[in-house]
Parts: sequence; C-alpha cells; structure tokens
Amino acid sequence: MYTSKAELLQQLEEWELKHKELLEKEEDNEVILARQKIQSIKETLTSNKTKKIVAKVPKGMKDNLPREMAVREKVFKLIIEVFKRHGAVAIDTPVMELKEILVDKYGEESKLIYDVADQGGELCALRYDLTVPFARFVATHKIDNIKRYHIAKVYRRDQPAIERGRFREFYQCDFDIAGIYDPLLPDADCLRVVYEIMQSLELGDFIIKINHRKILNGLFEYCGVPAAQFRTICSSIDKLDKSSWEAVRKEMIEVKGIPACMADQIGEFINYREKDLDCHQLLYTLSCTLGNTDTAKSGILEIKMLFDYLQCFGVMDRISFDLSLARGLDYYTGVIFETIFTDALVGSVAGGGRYDDLVGRFSKNGRKVPCVGVSIGVERIFTLMEAKLFKLDAEKIISRENETEVYVASTHGCVEERLKIVAELWDAGIKTEFMYKNQPKLLRQFQHCEDLRVPLCVIIGPAELEEGQIIIRDVFLRRDEKVNRSELTSRILAKLNKL
Amino acid sequence: MYTSKAELLQQLEEWELKHKELLEKEEDNEVILARQKIQSIKETLTSNKTKKIVAKVPKGMKDNLPREMAVREKVFKLIIEVFKRHGAVAIDTPVMELKEILVDKYGEESKLIYDVADQGGELCALRYDLTVPFARFVATHKIDNIKRYHIAKVYRRDQPAIERGRFREFYQCDFDIAGIYDPLLPDADCLRVVYEIMQSLELGDFIIKINHRKILNGLFEYCGVPAAQFRTICSSIDKLDKSSWEAVRKEMIEVKGIPACMADQIGEFINYREKDLDCHQLLYTLSCTLGNTDTAKSGILEIKMLFDYLQCFGVMDRISFDLSLARGLDYYTGVIFETIFTDALVGSVAGGGRYDDLVGRFSKNGRKVPCVGVSIGVERIFTLMEAKLFKLDAEKIISRENETEVYVASTHGCVEERLKIVAELWDAGIKTEFMYKNQPKLLRQFQHCEDLRVPLCVIIGPAELEEGQIIIRDVFLRRDEKVNRSELTSRILAKLNKL
Repeated sequence: MYTSKAELLQQLEEWELKHKELLEKEEDNEVILARQKIQSIKETLTSNKTKKIVAKVPKGMKDNLPREMAVREKVFKLIIEVFKRHGAVAIDTPVMELKEILVDKYGEESKLIYDVADQGGELCALRYDLTVPFARFVATHKIDNIKRYHIAKVYRRDQPAIERGRFREFYQCDFDIAGIYDPLLPDADCLRVVYEIMQSLELGDFIIKINHRKILNGLFEYCGVPAAQFRTICSSIDKLDKSSWEAVRKEMIEVKGIPACMADQIGEFINYREKDLDCHQLLYTLSCTLGNTDTAKSGILEIKMLFDYLQCFGVMDRISFDLSLARGLDYYTGVIFETIFTDALVGSVAGGGRYDDLVGRFSKNGRKVPCVGVSIGVERIFTLMEAKLFKLDAEKIISRENETEVYVASTHGCVEERLKIVAELWDAGIKTEFMYKNQPKLLRQFQHCEDLRVPLCVIIGPAELEEGQIIIRDVFLRRDEKVNRSELTSRILAKLNKL
Repeated sequence: MYTSKAELLQQLEEWELKHKELLEKEEDNEVILARQKIQSIKETLTSNKTKKIVAKVPKGMKDNLPREMAVREKVFKLIIEVFKRHGAVAIDTPVMELKEILVDKYGEESKLIYDVADQGGELCALRYDLTVPFARFVATHKIDNIKRYHIAKVYRRDQPAIERGRFREFYQCDFDIAGIYDPLLPDADCLRVVYEIMQSLELGDFIIKINHRKILNGLFEYCGVPAAQFRTICSSIDKLDKSSWEAVRKEMIEVKGIPACMADQIGEFINYREKDLDCHQLLYTLSCTLGNTDTAKSGILEIKMLFDYLQCFGVMDRISFDLSLARGLDYYTGVIFETIFTDALVGSVAGGGRYDDLVGRFSKNGRKVPCVGVSIGVERIFTLMEAKLFKLDAEKIISRENETEVYVASTHGCVEERLKIVAELWDAGIKTEFMYKNQPKLLRQFQHCEDLRVPLCVIIGPAELEEGQIIIRDVFLRRDEKVNRSELTSRILAKLNKL
C-alpha cells in the first residue's frame, strides 16, 4: 500500500512522541520496538519508495485559469458597481470561525462543515456561508446598522458534482442591510439591488419570485397543520423547484405524516401561480381566504406595502408573487425571494430574505438587530457569462485574458532601445509588453501580438532609429505609420484615445 | 470545567458510534454505560449549563471593518494597475492544497502550517504562501510560460503579535514570470514592477536591495566555508535586518561552528555597503576579488547585465547592491531582492527573486520551468497607507467608507415620491441613498449627509412638488439651488461632472 510523504511524517512524529514517553516510563522492550519502527519509517522516507508528488488540487476544488478569472473580474465589477450605487460598504471576515459559532445554524447540513485540525488551541471550522459570519460580525462589533457587501469563498464538504458546477470551494457574494428601520424599506432596496444586478449582467429575461414566511405559516395554520410541523412542511415545499407537486405531496403525507386532505388544501394555495393571477389579484384572493388568520394577515399587509415600494422603484414588472417559494434555511422570518433567468436552466441565481433573530443569537444581552439580505449565486452566473462570452468569441467579438495595449518589437535585437521605449510607455501609463529575448524574430513577435490580440505594435529597427523614426503598426488593420521617435508616446496615446 | 456546545456535540457523536458498535458486539453492560453517558451529554446540551456563545474571531485573526476595506481596495487597485500595465493575467488557486504539496518546502517553518481536519478523504492543509501553489499550478496545467498575479490570503499558525501586525491570516500579493527566456530580462521586468508599485503608493522614498545567490555562494566558497554549510550560513546572514553583525558573527562561530577568521572574512564582504560604494564600484571590487571563483563570476556577470537593463528601465537610482541580503527561503537560485521605505520602520515591503527548480519538483517528468517573482507585503503597506490617510483625514482631506454621491431627503415624508426619485437617479448610474423612514426628520437627514460626507442632497417637500420643483443642496458649501423636477437628473449629473 502506498503511504504519502505527509502521512509518513505524521507517523514519524507520533512514534517519536511515543518513544519519548516510553523512555520516561523506562519500558525498555517497548522502547526498542519504537526505535525499530522509527528507523523503518525514516528508511521509507529516504528511500525511493515514496511516490512522486502528484500535482493536483484537493477533491471538489479547482484552479481558476486566466480566462476564467477575466470573466470573474467582469462579473464582480458589475455587481460591486450596483452595491456601491446603493451606498454599501465592504467588509471582510476570517475564512474560519470558532466552531461553536457555526454549530446549530445549518440544520442537517452541519455535517458538511470543514473542520480545521485540532493542533492545540481553539476548535475552528471554515465558513459555510457569509450570513452567519455577518451576524457574528454585527454582534462582535456591536453595530447598530450597516449596509455591507462581502465577496468571499465558502466551504462545504459536499459530494462534488463538477460537471453540474457543484464544488467544495465556491464564491458567495452577499449584500445585507442590518438595522432597525421602518418596515419593508430596506427589503425594497435589497430587491432593487437584485433587479439592477440582473439587468446589468445582460444574461436574458429574469423574474424575482417573492413570498413571505408569515403568509406560509398562516396558510399552514389555516389548513390545520400543527405549529410544530410548520418548518418541516416548509422544507418539503422548498423541494418544488426540483420535484413535482405529486412527489412533494407524497412526502408530506407519507414522511411528514399529515392527512391527504390537508396536503391537498396546501396544494390549492401553492399552485395558485398556475392560475395566472397577477400579484395584486393573488394578494386580494389571499386576503379573502386567509385574512382572518393573524399571522397571514400581517404577512399580506407587508407584501402589499412591499409591492407599493417596488412599484415606485420601477421593478414590479419582474416580480412574481409565488406561494410555492419556501427557502430552505430556518432563520428567515419575513419576506423571502429567489431569482431565476427564465431562459436558463441553472436554477436560482440570487436568493435571500429577512432574518430578524440571527444577530440576537450572538449578542451578549440578546440585543436584536433585524436584517434583510441577498446572496448572489455568482458561480452560476460565471457559467452563464462564460457561455455568453464564448459565443461572442466565436463571432470574433473578443474577450481577453490581459489588457496589453502595445507590444514593442524590433527587427534586429536592439534590446536596450526596446527597454527604453517600453519604460517610456509604462511611464505614460500604457499597458506594454515585449519579448524576453535579445534577438527575437520579427515574425514571432507579430504572431504574439495577434495571438494576444494586442491592438498596437511598435517596431524599431537600426535603419529607422538612425533616421530618428519608429513604426507603429495597427495590428488588426495591418497598417503601418512612421512617426518621429520624440512623438511616439503622444501618437500612441492618441491612437488609444487616451489624450 | 466548561465544555463548549461544539465539543459536546462531538462527544455525543463519538458515544453514539461507540454505542452502535457495542450493540453489534452484544456487550450488554458496556451498552448500558454508553447509554447513560449519551443521556448525560444530551442533558448538558439541553440544560442551560452551556455557556452563551462568545461572538469573537479565532486567535490571531481579525475582521476588516469598512474603513480598513476602503484602504485595502485603494492599495489593491494601485497594485493591480501596475500588474496589468505589464501584461499580467490573474489566476486563483484553492485555499487548501494536498498536504504533500506543502511538505518539505518551508524548512523549519513547516510546523506553522494549518492542517484541515481528517474527515475522511485526502489530507489537506491551508496554503502557507502563494509561491508553492503557483509552482504546483504551473506543473498541474503543464504551462510553458505565464506572467501572472495572484492576490489571496495565506495562513500561518504563528504566535500572533497583533500590535506588530503579525496575524495568522493575511493577504499576499504576488507577481511571477515563469518560462524559458533570455537571461535577466524577466528579472528586470519584475524589478520595474516593484519600482512602479512603490512609486504609485506615494509612501515616501524607497530602495530596492539586490543580491545574487551565486555571488553569496561564491563568497562563501572564497572564504572557505564547506559547501554543505552554505545554506545555514545564508540563514544566519538573513538575520542581519533584525540583529547586529556581532550577534550574527557569534551565531556563525558558536552555533554554526565556522572559525572566527572565516566569519570575519565573510563580514568584510557583507559590510561593504558601509563603505559607500555605488553599485558599479562594488561590482568592480567583487570581480577583482571573487572573479576567479566560477560561481561568483557567473553571478557577477548576471548582476552586471541586470544593472544594464535596469538602467534602460530608469530605475537604477533606487537600486542598492547589498551583499548582506540573503533571503530566508531555500528555493532561490539567482537574483534576490527586498524593498524598504527609507523613512518607515516596518521592514521589507516587497521581496522576491529567481527560483528555477521549484516547478520541476511537481512535474511528472521533472520538466523545469524557471521562475522569477515578487511578493508585495501588502499588510505592511495597508498599515502605512492607513496612517497616511488618517493624517490626511485629520487635515480634512477625506477618505470615505462608501462612495454615495446623492442623498434624497424630504421635509414631510413623501416616501413614494422619494423612492421614485431615488430609482431615477439609480437608473442614471448615480450612487444614491435615502433614509429608511416614512417620516424622517429633515435635520437628521442633513446630519446623515454630513456624517457620510455625501456631496449632494436632494430635498423634496409638498410645496415645491406642487410647483414641480426640487431643491439640490451642495452639502459642503451649504448652498441650495431650485430646479425643475424634469431637469433634476441632468442637473445632478452636471454637478457631479458626469455629463
């Protein structure tokens, strides 16, 4: 059996510790055995039996290549622009939290948390999302109100499904508003942020599905579901985006144990979306049926107020009031929402809602700070954006890995002259490259320009240098222009529209 | 003794597993004991004996507050601009690597590596720097040449020293050039990158110290140090930035065991910097003394060529040829360098060098890809930049946490009208905020504007609305201007110089 070098070193450390203990206890026979073991591990270590290191990444993780990073940068830039337009500040938290911060926040999914090895000191684990660290952050720094964004990677020891884009390390991109405010104004702001992001991505039509936890609870109450079962029924309904109503109905009856008639009544409500009612018609219908249930009533009033605000914000044309939306996480207490691109099959690309009690769980005195927020599903967006850019690429509209504007080439080496020109262009803020060769071939330099899609190529040769002249080539048009050496930088700035 | 909830849950899991095993083995007495233990853990869990969670971050780590993030963003932007000006692409690698990738790369410091808990599967550890992951990346993707930057956090289980800015999680910011090229051209490019970054940060005068591993080795050879001791003597010399020559001399003699006369001769060389020789004078002196040693000779020729290139790049005025520079890491094989701000006491803010053998250690066929690179010490730069901005702040030159340009206020609520105006400004790409209140007090809205240093405030009131007018206030000058409702956005764009 193959044992990796890391494992051997670990074994060595353990045996050396054991050896020391045995020595102290004067257990001579055991000491001899331990020494033999240590010797054998050392031999394996120095022998050639240890396999050559395989240069791969951990299971379920991936490197991001320059081309992918260029897409990521583009997406992040668009998203951050929207966050800033709404006055958000940036924060950052450590990649790991104390284990007890994360425990008991994710229900069954807790088993997917990555633990850091116990090497003495505190028990820590890698963050699972950005919401719990945010709530901890608000409590730690005793913050009364904040509108922040946070872009960072999170970690889940899930069974990876690379082809479906499920990784163990992936980006999240969260925007949250914490603070005590008048109802629904922050919620509306948050939804407008989602709207602006989806617009700016230009990835096709989208709809934002909205529901309210209080309406769901009121609906369950109306149908006679015992209060203790609200959450578990909620999590059945949450599966509706992947399963059929029949499957969900079956689960509610057979697994969750509610009567068939109760399940059917719930089905009546959550299938309203199929009856083509618009948001306001559905609200009216609900207030007629559920209006006498206190919980539902307050949810209905809040949704009504939210729709008024969203109308003012000009986003109602994208809103779908959807009673079948439940959201998996336990901590939501009010408005919940999810966004999908109607022509893409990737599922939700932005989900969130109001969670008023989470910060209180971390505050010494139980101080509550109500929050509403959204998590943008950037990994799915990267996939869609890559596909779009790839299509554009095929049509010769170009995405590049770097942004080089000028390539400085020469016909006969002239390395020092080349370096001086490159430095002059850098001084002027122009993105410039050259070939790391003393005597590069002109054709290879041209080839490099075209491969990298650098728009301008400066060509220097001894003959032109003697005349005090230099050639600037438009790489796409393959058109040359001779300019005086002294005018080179200003000519290039002009050609790049940088003057 | 207090046991945390996380620990209790872990114990519970272990006992439940044990219980299952015992059941299978039909060890009835043991089963009963296990059941009692499980019951008792469950009781502790549900009782109030479990301490309230303390909302803090792991030891040696920190949250980044909005003000700090604004500084970080500024610094990263300047640095990335330089990287891109030199044609670099971005890459990213997972936060963890297979343990065996990291083992044996960091010498004594390996004990500071953060291991991920063994939860089944591969043994992994958090990255310790960005250089080893980069070399692994080049090997994994069989890359022949790449000029890349990588900005990411690295992890070291060091004894933290918060007040001196030593954390267990911190950013690194690396630029590397990999590929087979003509000598010293990539090295010169890399040093010009350092020069441009230091210039653009505007944090005062700086010098770039340069040395060459081959010159150091030649020097040791000349002084009669046995080849096997080159590295250990090198690491003694590396301490010269913190210790006196006397202390280093003592270590070389007493700990490393070389004769006093040998240490003194080494001292002669590495203290040349005190003799006020310029780079070229020192090169000449060295070639007279060490010129007959093959290793030193080739190092001297390389440094000479490098200086010629750096002269062309216009950076020689910042270069100090310093024989006392050694760099701690083992993997350097050629030019090495470090940068300091001459008026700041923070130590090196950029260090790097050539490492031609590291990629080969990860390649299946031992394929070598020579590399040269620099790691920018961004954490120290953040500290200096914060101090600078704080000073400017005190002088009323302003750094802000967010970038809000317009605050939309009202005299009498007018919430829907406010929302419509806010949406109109967002549509025009203007960074806009408003108060999440139905009836906010005007004074509080003004106060908010001034606190957040928002330059413009839009004020709407029922009287003005009736006339179809709106007030735009210049917050700093406290000057109001009445405009027609229909001209609001264009007036604001004009005031913000965005037309």
